[in-house]
Amino acid sequence: MTPETDQAVEHGTVVNEMGQDDSPELAGLYEDFESAHLIPLWTQIDDLMPMHPRPKAVPHVWRWSALYPLAQRAGDLVPVGRGGERRAIALANPGLPGRAYTTPTLWTAIQYLGPKETAPEHRHSQNAFRFVVEGEGVWTVVDGDPVRMSRGDFLLTPGWHFHGHHNETDQPMAWIDGLDIPFSHYADVGFFEFGSDRVTDDATPNFSRSERLWGHPGLRPLSGLQNTVSSPIGAYRWEHTDAALTEQLLLEDEGRPATVEQGHAAVRYVNPTTGGDVMPTIRAEFHRLRAGTATPARREVGSCVFQVFEGRGHVVLEGTEHSLDKGDLFVVPSWVSWSLRAETPFDLFRFSDAPIMERLHFNRTHLEGAPQ
Amino acid sequence: MTPETDQAVEHGTVVNEMGQDDSPELAGLYEDFESAHLIPLWTQIDDLMPMHPRPKAVPHVWRWSALYPLAQRAGDLVPVGRGGERRAIALANPGLPGRAYTTPTLWTAIQYLGPKETAPEHRHSQNAFRFVVEGEGVWTVVDGDPVRMSRGDFLLTPGWHFHGHHNETDQPMAWIDGLDIPFSHYADVGFFEFGSDRVTDDATPNFSRSERLWGHPGLRPLSGLQNTVSSPIGAYRWEHTDAALTEQLLLEDEGRPATVEQGHAAVRYVNPTTGGDVMPTIRAEFHRLRAGTATPARREVGSCVFQVFEGRGHVVLEGTEHSLDKGDLFVVPSWVSWSLRAETPFDLFRFSDAPIMERLHFNRTHLEGAPQ
Amino acid sequence: MTPETDQAVEHGTVVNEMGQDDSPELAGLYEDFESAHLIPLWTQIDDLMPMHPRPKAVPHVWRWSALYPLAQRAGDLVPVGRGGERRAIALANPGLPGRAYTTPTLWTAIQYLGPKETAPEHRHSQNAFRFVVEGEGVWTVVDGDPVRMSRGDFLLTPGWHFHGHHNETDQPMAWIDGLDIPFSHYADVGFFEFGSDRVTDDATPNFSRSERLWGHPGLRPLSGLQNTVSSPIGAYRWEHTDAALTEQLLLEDEGRPATVEQGHAAVRYVNPTTGGDVMPTIRAEFHRLRAGTATPARREVGSCVFQVFEGRGHVVLEGTEHSLDKGDLFVVPSWVSWSLRAETPFDLFRFSDAPIMERLHFNRTHLEGAPQ
Amino acid sequence: MTPETDQAVEHGTVVNEMGQDDSPELAGLYEDFESAHLIPLWTQIDDLMPMHPRPKAVPHVWRWSALYPLAQRAGDLVPVGRGGERRAIALANPGLPGRAYTTPTLWTAIQYLGPKETAPEHRHSQNAFRFVVEGEGVWTVVDGDPVRMSRGDFLLTPGWHFHGHHNETDQPMAWIDGLDIPFSHYADVGFFEFGSDRVTDDATPNFSRSERLWGHPGLRPLSGLQNTVSSPIGAYRWEHTDAALTEQLLLEDEGRPATVEQGHAAVRYVNPTTGGDVMPTIRAEFHRLRAGTATPARREVGSCVFQVFEGRGHVVLEGTEHSLDKGDLFVVPSWVSWSLRAETPFDLFRFSDAPIMERLHFNRTHLEGAPQ
Repeated sequence: MTPETDQAVEHGTVVNEMGQDDSPELAGLYEDFESAHLIPLWTQIDDLMPMHPRPKAVPHVWRWSALYPLAQRAGDLVPVGRGGERRAIALANPGLPGRAYTTPTLWTAIQYLGPKETAPEHRHSQNAFRFVVEGEGVWTVVDGDPVRMSRGDFLLTPGWHFHGHHNETDQPMAWIDGLDIPFSHYADVGFFEFGSDRVTDDATPNFSRSERLWGHPGLRPLSGLQNTVSSPIGAYRWEHTDAALTEQLLLEDEGRPATVEQGHAAVRYVNPTTGGDVMPTIRAEFHRLRAGTATPARREVGSCVFQVFEGRGHVVLEGTEHSLDKGDLFVVPSWVSWSLRAETPFDLFRFSDAPIMERLHFNRTHLEGAPQ
Repeated sequence: MTPETDQAVEHGTVVNEMGQDDSPELAGLYEDFESAHLIPLWTQIDDLMPMHPRPKAVPHVWRWSALYPLAQRAGDLVPVGRGGERRAIALANPGLPGRAYTTPTLWTAIQYLGPKETAPEHRHSQNAFRFVVEGEGVWTVVDGDPVRMSRGDFLLTPGWHFHGHHNETDQPMAWIDGLDIPFSHYADVGFFEFGSDRVTDDATPNFSRSERLWGHPGLRPLSGLQNTVSSPIGAYRWEHTDAALTEQLLLEDEGRPATVEQGHAAVRYVNPTTGGDVMPTIRAEFHRLRAGTATPARREVGSCVFQVFEGRGHVVLEGTEHSLDKGDLFVVPSWVSWSLRAETPFDLFRFSDAPIMERLHFNRTHLEGAPQ
Repeated sequence: MTPETDQAVEHGTVVNEMGQDDSPELAGLYEDFESAHLIPLWTQIDDLMPMHPRPKAVPHVWRWSALYPLAQRAGDLVPVGRGGERRAIALANPGLPGRAYTTPTLWTAIQYLGPKETAPEHRHSQNAFRFVVEGEGVWTVVDGDPVRMSRGDFLLTPGWHFHGHHNETDQPMAWIDGLDIPFSHYADVGFFEFGSDRVTDDATPNFSRSERLWGHPGLRPLSGLQNTVSSPIGAYRWEHTDAALTEQLLLEDEGRPATVEQGHAAVRYVNPTTGGDVMPTIRAEFHRLRAGTATPARREVGSCVFQVFEGRGHVVLEGTEHSLDKGDLFVVPSWVSWSLRAETPFDLFRFSDAPIMERLHFNRTHLEGAPQ
Repeated sequence: MTPETDQAVEHGTVVNEMGQDDSPELAGLYEDFESAHLIPLWTQIDDLMPMHPRPKAVPHVWRWSALYPLAQRAGDLVPVGRGGERRAIALANPGLPGRAYTTPTLWTAIQYLGPKETAPEHRHSQNAFRFVVEGEGVWTVVDGDPVRMSRGDFLLTPGWHFHGHHNETDQPMAWIDGLDIPFSHYADVGFFEFGSDRVTDDATPNFSRSERLWGHPGLRPLSGLQNTVSSPIGAYRWEHTDAALTEQLLLEDEGRPATVEQGHAAVRYVNPTTGGDVMPTIRAEFHRLRAGTATPARREVGSCVFQVFEGRGHVVLEGTEHSLDKGDLFVVPSWVSWSLRAETPFDLFRFSDAPIMERLHFNRTHLEGAPQ
C-alpha cells in the first residue's frame, strides 16, 4: 500500500505537462474557464496542496517594551466607546498584511483602559480571553458577573456572552486579549450585538460568582450538572496556576512523574464540566521552565502565540534565535519549528488553535530527530 | 442580562469617535503602529466583526450544460498526469477571485478522465469525495481497494488515504469532486504525498472490499470494532439512496413520520462506526422533493453546494430565483437565504462544511418568519 | 508498585486469625453485630471478594429437541393472555435454582404462539429481543409497527416500547426471547405497563416501518438525527446477516483482513445512530465458522448465551466438551473458559451482557496461553 | 400509541388463566419443565416484572452511637491482618439477610484501625471510597501514594489500585467505607490480589501526590492529558467541600442561582478529566440544608446511603419519619420515597449507584405531586 514516493519532492519539481503548451486552443480554453468562473486544479495545485503546511504567516516577536508605550499613547489620543468598542491594538502578522491577524485563526491584542474608563458591553460569536501580564484595577463584567483582573490571571469571555470592562482606579491598566476573530471572519460565522453602554454591574468583588460556584477542585455544583460548550469559570487565578506549577517541579525533585519533560512544568486551563479545552476554538496553557532547561524543537499543525510572564530566555523559530524578556510575545505559525531555552526560571503563557485542529482531525506533531 | 440593543444597528451607524480626528499626533501613532506590525481594532471592527455573517463569497449557479463541454475540451487539450495530478476544473466563487474556492471552506470541481486514462495515485490531508451525476466506467482505487463509479454513487477518499482513478472503457467519464482544500489551505494544515503512477490494483469489481465488509445495514464486522475518524465505506450506491428516499415518501403517504417536511425526503451519508458525518469537515446529503414542493427560506451558518441529480426546479438565493436543470450546481455562502421549489420530482445532492461549524459550535439556523 | 503476590493464593489459604477464636466475648460481639444488622467483612471476604469471578451459575446446554416439544405441550395446555402475558418458558441455570435466570443478568426463553393466537401488548423497562431459529407467520408489533418474524431474523423490543405478538397463520411458531430480566429484578429497576389486549395494528407487511426508514446501509434519515439509546431498527434480516458473513469468508479467501480469526466470520448487530450495541444492556452477534475451525479457549468477564442456528459442532466449557446441533442453546457464565469447534459449516447466534461490563469498566478477557 | 391501561393495576389483580388448572397433564408438564431446567414466565412474572421497583432491601437507619462502640469492641477482640484484610463491619440490610449487602449494589461499613495498626495492601476490581465523619491519624496508601485521612475528607480507591491503611498515632480511628461489592459479587466481575503486608510508603505527608498534581481548580497537568476511568484525585478535602457549600448559600442570599432548591446546597465529587462521576459505579455528593429546610419527597431508580456529617434533622422514608444525629447512616432502596428536614444546619454525605443506572439508562425520578 505504501508507494515509492520521495517526501522531499515538491509538485513543482515533477514534470508537469498538464496545460503547459501555448497553443491558441489552450489559451481559448483558459479564457472560457475564466468567464465561466472556473479554475483548473493543475495551475494551482503547487500552492493549494503543498507537501507540508507552508504558511504565509511568519514567525515574529513583539516587544512588550514597545507595545506598552504605544498603548499608552493610544490611551491619550483615542477615546474608548461605542462603535470602536475597545482600545485594543492587535498584533498583525507581517506575512498577512492588511488585516489584524496574528495567525489565520488567532487575533491577539494589547488592550488599554485609562483611569475610570469603561469599555461598553457587547457580545459576539467570537470566543475571547484576557491574560494579565501586569497591573490590576479593572473588572470585566461577563453576563453581569464582575470579574477582577490581576497579574497572572487568565479570564474567559466565551462566544455570545455579554461583557464590558471598567477601570475603578486612578491608574491605567493594560492586558492581552486573544480571540478567534480571523477564523470567524474567514469562515463567515460571526454575529455581534451591542449591550449596555455602562457595565451592568459596577461592583468590585474579589471573586466572581462563577469562581465562587465553580472554583473548588473536583467539586461540581448540583445546580450545574449540564455540560457547557465553554468553561463556566470566569477567572483562573494566578495563585492556583503558580501553585500547580510549583508542585509539579517539587514532585519532579522527588523523582515522581509530574512534568511534561525534565525541567518543564505545564498546565492546561480546562472546562471543569468536561475536562477539555476552555473554549471550542482556543486552547490556553501555562508553561514553566527551570533555568537552563531547553525544549526539543518541534513542529505542530496549527498556530500559537506565547507571552513571557516572568524571566528571561530564548526561542528558536525555524532556526532563528530570539531573546525574550517579560511581556514579550511571539507567534508560531503552523508547522514552524520552535524550541525554548530558559536563562532564568522562565514562565510563559501560551494559547493556540489546537482545539480546531483536533476536532477536525488535522493535528500532527513532529519532534526534531524523530522520523516524520 | 439582556441589554437594550437594536439588532439592526450596524457598527458603522454608531457614532465612532475612536481615532477619528486628524491630528498629527494621531497620524504619528498610526505610523508607529504600522512599523511595529500593529493594527488597532477600532479601524477594522466593522469589517472583522459584523452584526451577522457578511460573506465575500456570493451565491452562484454553474450550468452542467456549460461545464461538461469545457471539461471535454480540457480532455482533448490537457494530458492528465503526475504534477498536475488531476484533470479537475474547479468552481471559483466570483466573490473570491484568484483562488479556486467555491466557498472559504469548500472546493468543488468537475473531473474528467478520457478513455483508458489514469489519474496517478497520491494522498493528502484534505478530505475528498466524488459524486457521479452521469456516466460510468471509472474505478477509483482507495488504499488499494478498487471502487466502481456509477451514476448516483457517492464515493469517499478521506484524508491521507492513497487514491488514483482509471478509466477502463473507451468512453470518457466526468464527475464532481468535493474537498476541503480552501479550509486546509487557509488554516495551513495540508500534507501531500505522491504514490504509484499507475493504480495499485486495476481490477474492476462490481463492489469494493469496503462495501463488502461494511455495506450491510445495522451489522458491524467484529474485525472492525475500532471507530474510525471517517467512514470506512468507500461507495454509497445509488440503489440504496434511491430506495431510502422512495420509502420516506411512501411512509409519508401512509401518514407516518419519515420526511423532513411535507414532500421533502432526505438522507445523510454517515460513518457507520459512529452514526456521524462521513468525514470530519464535510457533510453530504441527498434530498428529494415531490413535484410542487417548496421549502421554507432558511439561513445557516456555514456554506454548502448543491447539484441537481434529476428533475427541474428553482432555487431562490437571497431573493433571486434561478431555474435549475440536471447537473446544475449552485453555492450557498454562509447566512445566505435559500429555498427550493420543485417543478418535477426533484433530486439534489448536497454537501457542506456543517461538521466544522458544529464541532466548533458556530452553527446557527434561521427559518424565515421565525424570530431570530 | 507490583507487590510480591501469588495470584493462585486464595483468601482461604492465608492464615486468617481475624475473629477466629471462640471466646465468649467474641461470641457476644457477633451476636450484637447481628442484632444491629451488621456483618463483619472478615467472615465473608472469601465469598464476597474472590480472587477471580466464581459464578454460582454453571455452564449448561439445553437441547432444541427437548425444548420444542415441551413448548408444544404448553401450547396445548396453557392459554396465552393478559396476566401471564407470554407463553415463554425460560432456561433456568441449574446453579441459580428457584428463579428463571439463565445468568445473573440474562433471561432466555422459548416463546410459543399457536395458530391465530395473540400475546397482548405491554411495555416494560426491561430490554428484549427475539431470535428466530425456525418458522414464520408471527408479526411482533412494536409501538404500533408490525414486524415480520422469519428464520434467521433478529428483532428488537428495547425498554419501554409497547409490543405484542400475533400469529396470522394456521401453524404454531416458536422463537427465542432474550431479556435483562435478572439484572432488572436484582437491581430493582423495572417498570411495567399493560397495553392493548389485541395488537394495535394487525397488518402483516413484509417490512416494518422501522426497516423502511433505517435499513439502508450508511444512510440516516434527516428526520432521525437525534441519537437513540437503543437501535431504531426493529428487525435485522437474515439475508443481510448471511450476506455479511459470506463476504467476510470470501474476503478471507482473497487474502484480505475481514474475519476475527482464521475461518471465523462474525458480525455485531448495532444501533445505526451510534455504531454501538443495539441496547444498553445486551450485545448480540452472529458467528460463522468454517467446517474444521476451532477457536482458542478464552475467558471473559460477563455472561453469554449461544444458540446454534445451523450446522454441527462442539463447545468445550471449562474443559467439558458438548456436542451441538441446530437449535441447541448453551450458557457461558462469567470467566468460564469456552471454545468452539465446527464439524460442518457452523452458524451461531450469541448474546451477552457485555455492554453492562464495558460501560461499568469491569470487562476483561483472557486468552488461553496468554499471560493473565 | 398509548393504550388504555390502568397504571395502578398489578399483574396479580388481572385474571391470569395461564397454567392455573390442576390437570395431571399440566402437573406433568411442570415436572418435565423442572427436570429440563426450565421455568415458565407466567408463574413468576408477578415477582420478576413488577409494575414498579419492589426492592427486597428495606429502608433502615444505623446509629453512629451504636456503631462506633461495636467497632471499638472489635478493635479489642479481633486483630487486623492478611486474610480478613480489614476490620470492617458492614451495614447489612434487614431485607437482604445473610449477606453484608446494604443494597443490591452497595456495601457500606465502618472500618476501625487501632493505634499503630496496619491494614495490609491489596487490590481488587471493586471500586472503593472512604468518608471520614470524625477523627484523624490514618494514612491510606494508594498505589504507593500516602493520603492523609481527616474529618470531612472523601477519599478514593478506584478498582484495581493497590491500597493499605496505617495508623501512625496512639489513638484509634474509624471511618466509613463504601464499595460496589454486592454488584460485583452478584454479576461475577471481581478479581482480587494481595499486596505488601506493610504499606509500601509509610510517610505521613499533609497532601498526597495526587492532590498536588490534580487539586488545582480548572487546571490540568500536561503530563495527564489522557482521560481516566476513575478520578485521579486521591482525597477531596473538607475545606474545599465546606467552602463550596458556603458559597452556594451566600450566592442564594444574594439572589443568584447556585443551590439545587431553596435552602439546599449540594456538590458532586467528580473526575476532573471528564467532569463525570468519580468512579464508574459510585456517585458521591455532599448536601447542606439550612435549618428549617425540607426537601420534597422523591423516588429514584437505584439505591443510596446517607451519613449525617453535622447537625440534626429528620428523614421520611416511605412515610416513616426517623430523627437523625451526627454520624447516623440510612439507606434508601430503589424507588423508596424520601425527604429530608433540617432542625439545625444539616450536613449530609451521600453515595449511590446512580452511575450504573444512568449508564444503563434505567434512571428515572419521580417528585411527589408531579405526574408520574
